[in-house]
Formats: sequence, C-alpha cells, structure tokens
Amino acid sequence: MKKEEEFSEWYSWVLKEARLVDLRYGVKGFLVILPNAFSVIKRIYKLYEEALEEDGHLPVKFPVVIPERNLRKEKEHIKGFEEEVFWITHAGKNILEERLALRPTSETAFYPMYALWIKGRKDLPIKLYQSGTVWRYETKATRPFLRVREILWIETHDAFPTLEEAKEQIRKDYEIAKKVIWESLGIPFFFVKRPEWDKFAGAEETYAADTILPDGKVLQIATTHLLGQKFAKAFGIKFMDSDGKEKYVWQTCYGPGISRIYASLLAIHGDDKGLIIPFHLSQTQVVIIPIPKKGKEEIVNEYARKVFEQLKGVRVVVDYGEETPGFKFNQWELLGVPIRIEVGPKEAEENTATVVRRDTREKTYTSLEKLKEKVIEIGEKMFEEMKRRSKEEFDKRIIEVDAFDTLSRAIENGKVVKAPFCSLGMDGYQCYSRIKEELKAEVRGEEFGSHKPQGKECVVCGKEAEHIVFVARQY
Amino acid sequence: MKKEEEFSEWYSWVLKEARLVDLRYGVKGFLVILPNAFSVIKRIYKLYEEALEEDGHLPVKFPVVIPERNLRKEKEHIKGFEEEVFWITHAGKNILEERLALRPTSETAFYPMYALWIKGRKDLPIKLYQSGTVWRYETKATRPFLRVREILWIETHDAFPTLEEAKEQIRKDYEIAKKVIWESLGIPFFFVKRPEWDKFAGAEETYAADTILPDGKVLQIATTHLLGQKFAKAFGIKFMDSDGKEKYVWQTCYGPGISRIYASLLAIHGDDKGLIIPFHLSQTQVVIIPIPKKGKEEIVNEYARKVFEQLKGVRVVVDYGEETPGFKFNQWELLGVPIRIEVGPKEAEENTATVVRRDTREKTYTSLEKLKEKVIEIGEKMFEEMKRRSKEEFDKRIIEVDAFDTLSRAIENGKVVKAPFCSLGMDGYQCYSRIKEELKAEVRGEEFGSHKPQGKECVVCGKEAEHIVFVARQY
Repeated sequence: MKKEEEFSEWYSWVLKEARLVDLRYGVKGFLVILPNAFSVIKRIYKLYEEALEEDGHLPVKFPVVIPERNLRKEKEHIKGFEEEVFWITHAGKNILEERLALRPTSETAFYPMYALWIKGRKDLPIKLYQSGTVWRYETKATRPFLRVREILWIETHDAFPTLEEAKEQIRKDYEIAKKVIWESLGIPFFFVKRPEWDKFAGAEETYAADTILPDGKVLQIATTHLLGQKFAKAFGIKFMDSDGKEKYVWQTCYGPGISRIYASLLAIHGDDKGLIIPFHLSQTQVVIIPIPKKGKEEIVNEYARKVFEQLKGVRVVVDYGEETPGFKFNQWELLGVPIRIEVGPKEAEENTATVVRRDTREKTYTSLEKLKEKVIEIGEKMFEEMKRRSKEEFDKRIIEVDAFDTLSRAIENGKVVKAPFCSLGMDGYQCYSRIKEELKAEVRGEEFGSHKPQGKECVVCGKEAEHIVFVARQY
Repeated sequence: MKKEEEFSEWYSWVLKEARLVDLRYGVKGFLVILPNAFSVIKRIYKLYEEALEEDGHLPVKFPVVIPERNLRKEKEHIKGFEEEVFWITHAGKNILEERLALRPTSETAFYPMYALWIKGRKDLPIKLYQSGTVWRYETKATRPFLRVREILWIETHDAFPTLEEAKEQIRKDYEIAKKVIWESLGIPFFFVKRPEWDKFAGAEETYAADTILPDGKVLQIATTHLLGQKFAKAFGIKFMDSDGKEKYVWQTCYGPGISRIYASLLAIHGDDKGLIIPFHLSQTQVVIIPIPKKGKEEIVNEYARKVFEQLKGVRVVVDYGEETPGFKFNQWELLGVPIRIEVGPKEAEENTATVVRRDTREKTYTSLEKLKEKVIEIGEKMFEEMKRRSKEEFDKRIIEVDAFDTLSRAIENGKVVKAPFCSLGMDGYQCYSRIKEELKAEVRGEEFGSHKPQGKECVVCGKEAEHIVFVARQY
C-alpha cells in the first residue's frame, strides 16, 4: 500500500491490519484501542509526563463531570463548546438536579478550585497536569486518533502572579513540545501563534504545534493558550500581592493531543510495508525468527531460545509459528517492530545472528556475544536516521511564496506555504476568507517568536505585511 | 490525633491536613485528588500494571460509554447495576438515539468485542487489562477513596478455552494481589471465596481480598470473579475447539480497587503524627532540613545544598522555609515523607548528616560520602519493618471462635473472627441473616483453597460446618 500516494487508504489499512483499533464498538466516534497501539500510547504519555514534571508540574485528578453552572461561567468558552458537550441527566432511576457535562476540556473544572486555593503570592505559581480523556460530540467525519469523540490528551493548568511569567510558560510549553514530540518521537512540527479567528474559546492568545501528514495536510497536535485574566475574572481567582493589592492571576493552559501525536507517529515514520515504531517505544523491540532447514528444525529452534536468553532486558519475542519465514517477515514489518533477528543452521553453528533493520532492511551479521550491545546500537541509530528522514521530508514540504497565484499552485500541489500576510487580527479576516474559499486552506499563523517582515506585501491584498504565515490545508 | 482510637476522625484529618483531596468540587461523591495523593496512586498503578503484564496481560483502552442495549444483555448483571448507572442522554442540543451508560464496570463493553475477536482455539486465551475509572451512583454516605462515585481501579477481562484454565487464573490473580498489595505495599489481607449471596452480579463465584482498617472493619480491596459461561452465552462468545465442536469460552475478571488500596496504605501505615509513605512510593523520599544557628545561616544553607547534590537520583527536597525546624518536622511527618535529614553547623563542619526515620524517629549519624547509600538502606529497611508491624497488627485483630456468644463479644470488640459456618450456599443465608441483624456483621467467606473442617459445628445453627469463615463488620 503506497503511503505517499494514497495516504488515507494506507492509514485505514495499517489501523486494521496492524490491529491498532477496532471500529465495531457500536457508538459513533468511539473505538477500542488495542494493545498494539495502547502499549505505545502509554509510553508517549510517560515521556510527556516526565517532561512536564521536570518543568515543575504536578499530577492531579479531577472529576470527569463538570456541573452545568460552572461550564457556563466564562461566556466565550461555553459558546465554543456547548454544541459539543455530552450531558449526564440521570443516575439510576433519578433525574439529576443539575446536568453534568462530560468534560470537553477542564478549565471550568479546575478554576473554581483555583479560586479556593490561591490566596497569597506564596500560593503561586500553580502548575498542575492531568493525563486523561475528554469527550467532544464531533459532528465532522471521525477518523481513529485523528478526529474522535473520545480524545486522549494531557492538559496543564498554570496560574502566575504576572503576565510575564505566563508568557514565559508559553515558551516553556514550546520547549517541552520540542523535547517530546520532536526529540523523543521524531515528529517535526512548526509552532505558531494562531490568528485571532482561530483561538481557543476563552483565550487571549493561542499557540499551536502543527505537523504535516504525508498527504500534505497539516495536523494540530498540541496547543498552548495564554488565557490572560479572562477565566480569573469569571471564577474570581485573586491573590494578595506583596504590594498589598488584590490582583487577578494570569493563566495558561496546554494541551498535547496524545491521540493525534500517536497518529502522526504512525503516519510520519511508516512506509509502504506498514508501521515503523521507534526502538524505545515499541512494545516488541526485537523479533527473533528461526529459519529452519529440513532436519535441523530442532537445532534452530533451540538456538533461537538461546538468542532470546541473550537479549534479556530488551523487549524481545521469538516467533515459533508454523508460517514461512517470508510470511512472518511481512507480518512483523507491518507491525513496525524495529529489529528482526534471523537465525538459521549457519548462525546456530557459528554462534552468530543476522540483525535486520525495519526501515532500511540493512543486515548486520554479529556474534552472539556482542548481539545485545549491537541491537541497542542499531535501534538507537535507526531512530536517529528516522528523525533525519522525517525532518528532510517535512522541510521539503514547506515552500515560501510571495504571490497569490504561486500560493494557489503550491496549495493545489499539497504544499505547506510560508507567505507574507497583512494581519492576524480581525483586520486580516477578509484575506483569510479568500484563502479559505478559493484554496480550501487555512492560515495557521505566524512562527512563535518571529518579527514583522521588512518590505513585504500581503499575498492576498497587497497591503503591507505584518507577518509571515503558514498556509495549508488542514486535516 | 489518635489513629487507633478515633480512626474516622484521624482519616478525615490526614486527608485534609496532608492535602490529599479537596472535597469542595461541588458534585456529591466526586472529589479532586491532589498531587500529594495522586503521585503515590500513579506508582501503585504502575506496580499493578507491571505485575499484570508479567502474567501476560496486555493494556487496552475501551470507551467509557456503554450502549444501553449492551448493558442490559446479561440479566443478573444489569439487575446488580441499574440503580447505580449515570446516563448520558444528550449531546450538544441533540437527544441521543440510545442512552449511553457511563461504565459502572466493563464486562458489557468488552464482551461484545470478544464475540467478534474469538473464533478458534488459537485466539485463546485473551488476557487484557484496563487502568481507569468507573462510575457508580453510590447512595450510601461517601468517603474519599473508601466509597466514592468515581472509582479508580484496574480491570482485567480474561477468556479461556477450559474451566480449568479459568480457575487457574483465579489463583494467579491471588498471587498478583499478594505480590503487589502485600509485598510491594505492605498491606496485609485475607483472600476468600464470597458466599453465594455476596457475589458479583453475573458471576458464578466471587473471590475477594479484604484488609482490616484500624477500627477493625474489613475493607474489600480487590475482587476476582469466575464468570463461567454466563456472559459468554449472553454475548455469544464461542470458539471452534480442536475437536471440531463449537464451545463457549470460560471467563474471569479481576478488579483491584486502586482507590481503596491507596486508602488502606494510608490507614495501615500511618500513625498519630500523620502519614507514613513507603520509601519507594513517596513523591518526596527525603527532606533536608537546615538547622541554622545565629550567624551560621549561610554556612548551613550552603551545606544543605551540598547534601542535596549528594543525593541525586533520590527524590529529595530542601526545606529552606522561614518556619522553625520543629514546625517543619511536624509538617513533613504529617505528609509521611519517610526520611528526614537534619543538617546544622556541626554537620556542615564535619561533612556529615543526621538521618531520621519517619516511623521510629531513629537517628543515624553518617558521613556525607556514605549518605546516599545509607539513605537507601534505611529506606528499604524501614519498609520491611513497616510490613512486619502491619502484619503483626493484622494477625492480632483476627481471632478464632466456636460459639455464638464469643463471636458476638469479639465482633463488639472490633475483632475479625474466624468461625465454623454451615454453608456458603443459599442454605446458609438464614444463619448469615442472624449475624447481620444481631451483630451488624458480614460473613466474608472462606479462605481461598481451604478444605472442609473436621467435626465442627456452625457457630449459629449448630449444624455440621462446611466452612471456616471470616466474620466482621465491613466498611
């Protein structure tokens, strides 16, 4: 199955054939995540949690239900979410006095408590994270991990005494994304400030990490919001500052979308044969495949067991199945297991093993003695090369243009475009509308920390450009 | 606060003062679990998940919603749960075509899928686990971690081709409980087969781990159920056996209650000064407290930092706060941090440290060089002694009796009683009713794997006793 040419089909194919999800649960947009997927997702959670804890965040667990009166407290927020909320109305045979929302996000769960917890400057900053699920009644077509009604994510909710500290947290959130999503998972992304018309409901500013799928569409995989004091005012989150004045806190929240990060991992590293899972993430890191020869079956199987013992500490399995080696190769390649070890009568005799990389199929012949060391070395090297390839691919997909017709052609060709643009405030909305209508594309925003370009004109209206923006079709 | 004499007050006191939960969330029976608690709970999850994976279970993620038609498929099951289910009826402004239950347990989520997945003998056994939350509209008085509407737990769902293998899994579930709850957490328990009248809704047999709280009440902390073929028949989970016949699978499910295990950890190891958290579980393993002397503040604080550096790899903090050392000692003892290190001018001068154990307050004076090794050694030894004490306490609480009046007195005195009993089938229900009515106690069942006692008479009716059972008041 061609990944590049028929990405959508490829994606459906691997989801099914690699047994990642089962779509037959019977509730639209809800699916069963199978062990082949969930074991990897758990490792992604762990990496993100560790990075957040290193940055001073502590884990917390809030209820999944939010009383309706709290959800309605911040006006823009409820406007953004009210079409998407699942409501609990009954318990047993009783009607609840107040409807409970299954949380679509947790600002309105956390912040009434922040109002109780925060009194003085010594209570700040508060930096908490919650790993878990949110539910949104998505009306667009759903797609496993990419667009679902039950979303796996992490959310952080931070409160600071000053705007400067809140802004600094946005930068830290970006650093954490770089560390986990790029460095640990090899998923390249750009990090942008979203236009005014594309902000989180209730935020002053929204920043987002976008990656690029093999079909050229961009996918939002993490967002971080400068909430400013909007929620602080709605929920009364105040502190007595050292100058003796009572002030509202400054807030940020951050939501790495674990479902989508996982989808990107599959899409970006996979190839026409199936998945390629990085060595440190794969549930099975090494599969040993005995290559029997007539009359030597026992010797080979026994040797496979010896090789298995040699690899203790690595997540390794032996495939003793009845199928042919060729069939097994295909199966394990489809699952994305990063390293295959072939052992036949020759290896058994010589106390060696043939190590095969999933991505390049490069073979290394090594002694049993050095095998474990070699396997780890190859696994690590392979991931570094996967990262190099994904970054090259990513960079190739982004081009810079200065005129609407070249923008238009580039978008048609599945590119992500960097172009000068008049304004990311509501002044720019009309130019955006033309891009949206004529090109079916989105203005994703301006790279984090960038400055006003010199002497550039908006690719749509020709007025002075305030920003260089990313334009692309979105998933 | 006296833990033994006023356990209920003690429990409320530590929950609040050690900042474990906040009860002011505003939805009855739902609470916020704060970092001091949740960081430990996460480690308990990890220990259990590792033990389950070692036993061949794989992680899976099912939706939290169950369509009403599935929940109703097994008749006894829905009878047991229908008063307790939260129902989702609306999404956005739409009324859902079918009501969705917020899962109270996941048999009816898993098993329709098992019917799809299981075809032949090679698809068996299936052993999956899910870490997560279930929701029950508890009508009794709620109590944090002990009885809540949002329950943290793990559930496994296993299917086997034969009854023997299913029964063997019950034994393995018991071994896993022993390994995690007793060996890794130091919580003693007895493991019993529950009477017929106290089974899980839809099970053939129910087994449970009960621990004993400081007030003498027993608390169920894990259950494992032999489901037999009841659900297999309700959901049509069949396989083609090697003899060419189509057969129903044999099922078990297992539910360690992480909320309650955590509550037991607090209750069993704590003392009048507050919590005592085992060294390997505590978010902060070591707190360094500088003991300043007038004019030497800087030297002492600087030395504290040096000691901190020496302990890299251990979870350690320095408390530089303004409060007196005595105040700090109390605070950190309340939180249950297992090891305190005191450093004053003397230690700074001599390059030493005073290490104090939380449980016995025993002091060890050691060189900076050997400090880390010493801390780990003391931490491990402390946990072994905590286990020894908890086991002694547990054993002391259990007494054996042969007559109703001694049973009655023992129950009044807050004991857990082992007594001969006629029958755990419905034949014994009348005897149980007397115990329930007169003593407000429960027949918890018969120790796993035990045999019919010889020549004993039922403590209630005097008929021949089939079992030795545990009788106790339950939480």
